[in-house]
Amino acid sequence: MSKGAGFGVDSGPEGPILRIGVIGCGRIGRMHAGIIAREVPGLALGGVADVMTAAAESVSEATGAPVMTIEEMLASPEIDAVAICSSTDTHVDYIVAAAEAGKPIFCEKPVSLNLAEVERGVAAVEAAEVPFMIGFNRRFDPGHESVHDAVAEHTIGDLHLVRITSRDPAPPPVEYVAVSGGIFMDMMIHDFDMARFVAGSDVVEVYAKGSVRVDPAIGEAGDVDTAVVILTHADGTFTTIDNSREAVYGYDQRLEAFGSGGMAVSDNESAHYGRLLTKGGASAEPLAWFFLDRYMPAYRREWAAFREYLVSGGPSPAGGNDAIQVTKIAMAAGQSMREDRPVKISEIG
Amino acid sequence: MSKGAGFGVDSGPEGPILRIGVIGCGRIGRMHAGIIAREVPGLALGGVADVMTAAAESVSEATGAPVMTIEEMLASPEIDAVAICSSTDTHVDYIVAAAEAGKPIFCEKPVSLNLAEVERGVAAVEAAEVPFMIGFNRRFDPGHESVHDAVAEHTIGDLHLVRITSRDPAPPPVEYVAVSGGIFMDMMIHDFDMARFVAGSDVVEVYAKGSVRVDPAIGEAGDVDTAVVILTHADGTFTTIDNSREAVYGYDQRLEAFGSGGMAVSDNESAHYGRLLTKGGASAEPLAWFFLDRYMPAYRREWAAFREYLVSGGPSPAGGNDAIQVTKIAMAAGQSMREDRPVKISEIG
Amino acid sequence: MSKGAGFGVDSGPEGPILRIGVIGCGRIGRMHAGIIAREVPGLALGGVADVMTAAAESVSEATGAPVMTIEEMLASPEIDAVAICSSTDTHVDYIVAAAEAGKPIFCEKPVSLNLAEVERGVAAVEAAEVPFMIGFNRRFDPGHESVHDAVAEHTIGDLHLVRITSRDPAPPPVEYVAVSGGIFMDMMIHDFDMARFVAGSDVVEVYAKGSVRVDPAIGEAGDVDTAVVILTHADGTFTTIDNSREAVYGYDQRLEAFGSGGMAVSDNESAHYGRLLTKGGASAEPLAWFFLDRYMPAYRREWAAFREYLVSGGPSPAGGNDAIQVTKIAMAAGQSMREDRPVKISEIG
Amino acid sequence: MSKGAGFGVDSGPEGPILRIGVIGCGRIGRMHAGIIAREVPGLALGGVADVMTAAAESVSEATGAPVMTIEEMLASPEIDAVAICSSTDTHVDYIVAAAEAGKPIFCEKPVSLNLAEVERGVAAVEAAEVPFMIGFNRRFDPGHESVHDAVAEHTIGDLHLVRITSRDPAPPPVEYVAVSGGIFMDMMIHDFDMARFVAGSDVVEVYAKGSVRVDPAIGEAGDVDTAVVILTHADGTFTTIDNSREAVYGYDQRLEAFGSGGMAVSDNESAHYGRLLTKGGASAEPLAWFFLDRYMPAYRREWAAFREYLVSGGPSPAGGNDAIQVTKIAMAAGQSMREDRPVKISEIG
Repeated sequence: MSKGAGFGVDSGPEGPILRIGVIGCGRIGRMHAGIIAREVPGLALGGVADVMTAAAESVSEATGAPVMTIEEMLASPEIDAVAICSSTDTHVDYIVAAAEAGKPIFCEKPVSLNLAEVERGVAAVEAAEVPFMIGFNRRFDPGHESVHDAVAEHTIGDLHLVRITSRDPAPPPVEYVAVSGGIFMDMMIHDFDMARFVAGSDVVEVYAKGSVRVDPAIGEAGDVDTAVVILTHADGTFTTIDNSREAVYGYDQRLEAFGSGGMAVSDNESAHYGRLLTKGGASAEPLAWFFLDRYMPAYRREWAAFREYLVSGGPSPAGGNDAIQVTKIAMAAGQSMREDRPVKISEIG
Repeated sequence: MSKGAGFGVDSGPEGPILRIGVIGCGRIGRMHAGIIAREVPGLALGGVADVMTAAAESVSEATGAPVMTIEEMLASPEIDAVAICSSTDTHVDYIVAAAEAGKPIFCEKPVSLNLAEVERGVAAVEAAEVPFMIGFNRRFDPGHESVHDAVAEHTIGDLHLVRITSRDPAPPPVEYVAVSGGIFMDMMIHDFDMARFVAGSDVVEVYAKGSVRVDPAIGEAGDVDTAVVILTHADGTFTTIDNSREAVYGYDQRLEAFGSGGMAVSDNESAHYGRLLTKGGASAEPLAWFFLDRYMPAYRREWAAFREYLVSGGPSPAGGNDAIQVTKIAMAAGQSMREDRPVKISEIG
Repeated sequence: MSKGAGFGVDSGPEGPILRIGVIGCGRIGRMHAGIIAREVPGLALGGVADVMTAAAESVSEATGAPVMTIEEMLASPEIDAVAICSSTDTHVDYIVAAAEAGKPIFCEKPVSLNLAEVERGVAAVEAAEVPFMIGFNRRFDPGHESVHDAVAEHTIGDLHLVRITSRDPAPPPVEYVAVSGGIFMDMMIHDFDMARFVAGSDVVEVYAKGSVRVDPAIGEAGDVDTAVVILTHADGTFTTIDNSREAVYGYDQRLEAFGSGGMAVSDNESAHYGRLLTKGGASAEPLAWFFLDRYMPAYRREWAAFREYLVSGGPSPAGGNDAIQVTKIAMAAGQSMREDRPVKISEIG
Repeated sequence: MSKGAGFGVDSGPEGPILRIGVIGCGRIGRMHAGIIAREVPGLALGGVADVMTAAAESVSEATGAPVMTIEEMLASPEIDAVAICSSTDTHVDYIVAAAEAGKPIFCEKPVSLNLAEVERGVAAVEAAEVPFMIGFNRRFDPGHESVHDAVAEHTIGDLHLVRITSRDPAPPPVEYVAVSGGIFMDMMIHDFDMARFVAGSDVVEVYAKGSVRVDPAIGEAGDVDTAVVILTHADGTFTTIDNSREAVYGYDQRLEAFGSGGMAVSDNESAHYGRLLTKGGASAEPLAWFFLDRYMPAYRREWAAFREYLVSGGPSPAGGNDAIQVTKIAMAAGQSMREDRPVKISEIG
């Protein structure tokens, strides 16, 4: 789908410099803007936009990039691609507008909480034939990627099992939980993506259990805070996932693939590698605190991958079908939990 | 149930020496006989018995303990307790005979593949009021025990999740698989026991998936070689378990409990702790090869616990109800896999 | 010595913003300029200077800070402090000039290869009463700092031994070696500083052995590439250090303090935490490649410490006496190696 | 020197069974007797002897082996080799007597505190042409052996540096210290042996520093309790060693070899591999407590190596010249510490 050429300006030894416009200047938009502005060779921050002008101005001040309206950004010949970092309910409208404007699109996850909306966005992208990539940052974590590679390169033989643990250090505000789409759509969606990414095989069935153990208010908001899932892939591989909204020891992010030839593991990183041995035993630092600490290298590599995708073409590192599939898996998980039975993906949509 | 007094001879500074009679002199009986004979203060090997006289004679030669018939052993005043290490289908008959003879009983797992038989054995033990302990050796592994203790002592707060990985280094012979009772009864029964032991809460529901990935002959024998399970405990805790009959990198035995106050982990042990760093990265030794390497300290501690149970009384370290519960869980797991639905323990038996 | 007040502009919630002028725009100056410009709250890059105008212009372009001459920088009321990152032989002249101009000074290590010159710089700083800090970045590594803290807070009791391993991934060009001052002054000076920093006790005697094992050309340039040293501290603590110019597995940076109450260790960090277990054993990633990978968090924390020192006063995090002491230790090490005998620090200077 | 054939009785599938007579039934003799009696295929305990009859009788009771006088043992055709485990001052007389009786000899370390005595023992062994092996058990630790192998097989290229840390969990009684020969002869002698074993190159120079930090009574007994040493090998490799009589966190036994192609490390083993992660960080078990916990696999492999040496011939796994060399290194270390100067091995004896 990629045009694979003709983007950017100022071709230097590293190739063209692509100018990215960031739509949405909240926490995650500000982070992406900073990375684009300074940390990825071949990328420049072409402009920032937000319906809240003050948010855009604050990011503009920190990065030197001009404030634009979204309309100006989509019309500007000096913007080579857009990064949609606004609130989830606005994603698809911006995707459609950007696609119609012929702009390549990077969109934060989830594309939408609503499958029909996801499909509408993907259809617009496909009709316009613009490059499209979802911000599944964990695909670009070097440790997780090494697990993917061990499967893809058959280093661990035929894949039998994938095991994912993903626990946040602290729950989000209950107001956020209420509009988040629930743990499967908001949090475990990353793990559904990792399961498909690592296994290289679609998911065909989901069984999910959930409970409220961290905070009763989360239950009152209609969600669970603790969940375990078994995915069955088309090739027979099983993936087990567990999520908790609160791991007091830090951001617990582990991934493991097991096959006929061995096991590939991506382990947690510690805040640092000092430790202490005394009469009482050994003690060490807690884990990295949260995603900005843990996944910053992944976010940088994600942007390098987006640039490479635009410059060199080829399949999207995380494209439209990926968005549709993980949305279906999250919906199936919710249904499975409610009905206490395995749900087939073919039942969804 | 324990009589808690009156056993053994030669009370010394360590208390009475209990004389154990071993019934069944195959691989596991020979191992127990060696541990009893030499490695546990306060225990002595009082005699060995096997329907195959040559097997008993071989263990007798290695340990110095006399060969007896089972009838002689159960009648002898010089035998303080028996260890039933014979083939699974003989366990319950020996349990009943030993109970009727008033002998305290150590019995290898599983007690029986048949729930009614397990219940018959437990009923005989309860009627005779003899001490009874099942050989769930993993309860006595120092690392696993530290996970149990972290839950029991509330060091990790309220328990939310238990995660168990248990993979053998190589599959057993297919002839063994055919009579083993299947992966849930033969192999995952250890993990069902660990789930109950660590969580301190009964299991109320089981969901199981299984597949044949290691060896088609295992499938032809009516079993699976790869399985994942979600257990729901009475207190709402979820346990996830995965099993494989073949992990080429060694005997993979991991256990983890996660709660409101943190996580307790029992990790694999390596064959040794030498390692190498070269231009290509770091390399280290594989895991301990199999249960005789990995769990020898646990087996020794198991026998010390059996002795302590007989001498001091108190509840069994792993008693009759534990045998009944894990048998039901294994049956529920098989039914869940066959019917692809969660099965309640209350449906069993 | 610090004025402790009156610096900077635009006091906001984080206090004043200090404008730093960077002198010397080579590799290390460019790195510091980038950190100052963007990564430390309360710091701004006020200007850049280099005798090679093109180097200054390149850094100016990347950061937006104006190019200045050194004279302009020292005279400007809009520069609150200077960072001396030029070649070692120019350090002391710039220190003296900055001190006379009343500017607080950050100076890269080593201050000078010549003890009299170090003392001239320190005397100028003391006469002018300007804040002065040497760029011993490793003091600010979180892992190393945890070892320092374990000693300072007596967590490991009375200190008995310090053990430092410091090995570069690849040797520098031989032309660099020839003017570097030798392995003790150029490379091990960091470890001499860490020994004093961790032990909190001056060094009184040095015994050093060195050899040429990595590259004969280093020997022809009059230096060694492999060295081991024993330091004796005033309080009786021993420190052992080993250095190599080439560890093919990466940048090996380990530190350990041992005392009556235990041991504190700062271990290497890996490039990432993916790993692989196969029949042949376990394999993992190599270490972080070099100082820009390994010590980037330390460089950021170093600049935050410099700012805090200027704003809040107090002793320098690494001051004039530290520079004099490590220079003497490096000189004593060279003399010890040449004469094959322990050399007392009191013999130097 | 080995006869390499003709030993033992009852050749079975594993070859002949060698009958070992143990001389000296204190703590270490009792341990060796137990290993020989039960844990090494192809070995049997032929008899036990001690000038204290009660000690011999106690070991006899535990193992079933007959009590003998030393004279009976040396004269008996049913004893194929002797293990000298008596107090150090008796070693050489028993070596000479056993050599004259034609018995192969295993002797605990150190052979003697006196170089002339060591040489007298070695001369007797050489004159009699009997196999002779010193009990340097650490050579048989699987982790340490992997470091040796990485050097011997050139996996880490040319060797540049060896680093050894060896710290006991608690100091011995002061009365023992007073007759022990001092820290270099009693404790660091193991590390001198490891340095030669790993490097595969003789030591030519020693520099040693020592201090009294653990217990003033050790100083009053004329010894030190904390020591650091640099060894220079004939091939230019440097070895650094540190020893402490008291590491409160357990038995600290680490070994590392660094060369042009990488690094081989042998790390500590933990008491077990359970660990805990809470808000305050990670905590784990202390190290294995002391040599009987840490090195039991090494002791078993040591006896298998002794048997293999007797059965198959070849050079001793740790022979007469090894005893002479480590004695000289220990003497040189003592002299270096007293005179505060490097001492050449050629100055000794």
